[in-house]
Amino acid sequence: MDNVHDLKPFFEPGSIAIIGLSRKTGPGSYNALENLVGYGYSGQIYPVNPNAGEIMGFKAYASVNDIPDPVDLAVISTPRAGVPSHVRSCAARGIRCVSIVTQGFNDTGDDEGNRLLNEIKEIAASTGCRILGPNSFGSANVFYNFSSAFARISMQSNPIGLVSQTGGIFNGVSEFRFVGKGIDVGNMCDVDFADCLEYFEHDPQVKVIALHIEGMPDARRFIDTARRISRRKPIVALKTGRSRQAAKAARSHTGSLAGSNEVWEAALRQAGVISVNNLEELVDITRALCLLPPLNNPNICVATFSGGTAIMALDAMQGSELLAADPAPATMEKIARLAPPWLGVGNPVDYWPMVMGRQSVVRSIKDIMEILLADGTFGGWMFIQIVPDSRISAEIRDLLKELVCGHPGKPLACVLTGAHGSELIKELQEGGVLAFPTPERASRALAGLYHYHRYHSAP
Amino acid sequence: MDNVHDLKPFFEPGSIAIIGLSRKTGPGSYNALENLVGYGYSGQIYPVNPNAGEIMGFKAYASVNDIPDPVDLAVISTPRAGVPSHVRSCAARGIRCVSIVTQGFNDTGDDEGNRLLNEIKEIAASTGCRILGPNSFGSANVFYNFSSAFARISMQSNPIGLVSQTGGIFNGVSEFRFVGKGIDVGNMCDVDFADCLEYFEHDPQVKVIALHIEGMPDARRFIDTARRISRRKPIVALKTGRSRQAAKAARSHTGSLAGSNEVWEAALRQAGVISVNNLEELVDITRALCLLPPLNNPNICVATFSGGTAIMALDAMQGSELLAADPAPATMEKIARLAPPWLGVGNPVDYWPMVMGRQSVVRSIKDIMEILLADGTFGGWMFIQIVPDSRISAEIRDLLKELVCGHPGKPLACVLTGAHGSELIKELQEGGVLAFPTPERASRALAGLYHYHRYHSAP
Repeated sequence: MDNVHDLKPFFEPGSIAIIGLSRKTGPGSYNALENLVGYGYSGQIYPVNPNAGEIMGFKAYASVNDIPDPVDLAVISTPRAGVPSHVRSCAARGIRCVSIVTQGFNDTGDDEGNRLLNEIKEIAASTGCRILGPNSFGSANVFYNFSSAFARISMQSNPIGLVSQTGGIFNGVSEFRFVGKGIDVGNMCDVDFADCLEYFEHDPQVKVIALHIEGMPDARRFIDTARRISRRKPIVALKTGRSRQAAKAARSHTGSLAGSNEVWEAALRQAGVISVNNLEELVDITRALCLLPPLNNPNICVATFSGGTAIMALDAMQGSELLAADPAPATMEKIARLAPPWLGVGNPVDYWPMVMGRQSVVRSIKDIMEILLADGTFGGWMFIQIVPDSRISAEIRDLLKELVCGHPGKPLACVLTGAHGSELIKELQEGGVLAFPTPERASRALAGLYHYHRYHSAP
Repeated sequence: MDNVHDLKPFFEPGSIAIIGLSRKTGPGSYNALENLVGYGYSGQIYPVNPNAGEIMGFKAYASVNDIPDPVDLAVISTPRAGVPSHVRSCAARGIRCVSIVTQGFNDTGDDEGNRLLNEIKEIAASTGCRILGPNSFGSANVFYNFSSAFARISMQSNPIGLVSQTGGIFNGVSEFRFVGKGIDVGNMCDVDFADCLEYFEHDPQVKVIALHIEGMPDARRFIDTARRISRRKPIVALKTGRSRQAAKAARSHTGSLAGSNEVWEAALRQAGVISVNNLEELVDITRALCLLPPLNNPNICVATFSGGTAIMALDAMQGSELLAADPAPATMEKIARLAPPWLGVGNPVDYWPMVMGRQSVVRSIKDIMEILLADGTFGGWMFIQIVPDSRISAEIRDLLKELVCGHPGKPLACVLTGAHGSELIKELQEGGVLAFPTPERASRALAGLYHYHRYHSAP
């Protein structure tokens, strides 16, 4: 439980000192203070810059020693030579948490970087001051309107806790915002993956934990911690640096020892962690675990407006644990009654011939979906729809919200294509409906969800 | 050359009869006439509906026989029983091209569907009337403000010719519009893949041909045609229906015999066709072939704002034909002069430590990119950037356009992440810059480009 107390200032700092803050403001200046103001952060902000009287109306201090009030968190982004003395000042001043943005420590090949890092480690060990980084993007907590990062991040209250070794993924991919709460452990001289896992374990605002790992010197404590926590909260992990060349790049990015890919795969799997291949999968599976109820049966009903796209969905499911068996006979009968006599009914359920020419296409789709969602043969449902214009988009949005609200126990993943598809996906993201632009991504998300629940329900 | 003449009315009809057009209009009504008006189609439109006097101000005719003027293309979407007689009227009326939307022929299991289809085939054979479908989404030509489809499609003049067996992909995926020119051969009772390939072969507005194949009864002529044409124009193909279950679904979608996946793979490869695994790859590689100059050397320079994302790019390149060797010594020296002394220089080139704190971050990035683009060690370049706000977005947009215009012979793929990443990708799409939301997609696009040029430059 120590980490819950120790790391709190990284996520909920009542006050923050920004050491080495530039006077440059305005968009494009990568100014952390400006970002904080933009987020609506309500804590105290103390710029530390010996050459500035004030920055954006905030009084600037020459040193942390000059700040009259208590400070919860300090962020350092000065050149590397001065970092140890700033850390010492922070510790002496009673600041419990320090986040170091500066690069050039064990991520370099030179002795000086390692010497400076050892100095920082000694200060941490002797004072109990917790150090994030160095070479960290910082920490973020959307629920607290807070991020210490120099680059602006998206603010959307997802119940996701991210621990990463890069700031590059705080925003997720394309249409999907990711953080929630995020922390970049960087070169990991003190605060590490296991510490952050323990923090998120006890955080009621975090439902799913996502990890981006380049490597670590000793993975044993991390794996033990992950094994314990993954029983209570899903953990999804992306291990990068898999090729020899990528491993070399990881060494000079965060000073990480990437380790053998096979060993990592096995260790993560045995710890009940869902291991993914890329950032898109990390985001998609994490989102599925946040939004959907458990998927305990691998049989997926594919309902589709587009026969061709449904075939792609079946191709995508091949090789996963998912299946697409036929509906129950009673379901087939009900569907057949809505279909032209020549239409074969099976799985996928190609509903276009059943709804074309009807008074309301979308209401007709609803009738079909209600029949399919009632069929206990299926553990999950995939809904594939082309969204050609704004009116159909609004109707499909309402239909999906209605289906999701009306069937809280049924995992549903949507695939929305067509001219208005990506806009509707973005809109649904805020409405709690899981939707993707391709059947491959929907299939992977459902497969990840099933994998988690199967693993953790096994005796 | 016959197909160039024969198929022209599917792409450039001076006049179109829409048989079985509903009177229902307004968004959500899937009305092809309304779509044509929306696109600004300038040809003549003749609705055929015995129960309507006029539709949207267009005089409706009880039958094609009542239309006083010549008709280039007829589109039929009546119930299946009436289709043969409509086709017969069209042929008798001198209409050379007929597109059949109606389903329920060899895509069903019943005898009646096959009997009706044989009747249509006989009319085609005896009159020379060319039939598209049945079960076709129709054809589209953005350069002509034309699409016969009931669902609205995006209109963007890409030099892409798409031949598919589903209308579901006329719009591409997420941020990327796809057609250009598109034709859905559906159940392929007459107009087939080889015919359409020959049409696009001689079309100066089509630079790259994209295929979505579920299956076909006799692939030999198609493969022979593809082999000949792929030497002149790149062909990218997605073969779906790969699993047993998906093959069964393809049978009831377009009546297609999916065939063995391994045989297809080998045949496509030997024909010089780039075979892809899913729709996203089809779109991404097709776009790369449209936008980028040849990639004849597999060594890719990865320049990055985010070390973590570059490592993901190297992971993605693993297993492809791409490499990421070090820059030339002279390049390393020039880069080192811009970097802090502790920074190791290699590939990826992590430029954040070189540009942070500079007067103009983006101008500093330009200097680095100019050095890297001048290095003949590399055949291609990947540029990875986080786009946190609108001002950086505008600066990066201008930078990328400048780099692309200044180096027309250098293939450059961009990865843009961050809060404004996806908006910038959409904006750049119209500016001729190839950009993706993930390093995996950029890597696949470059790998596809290299594969094509390597295959077709081999002696």
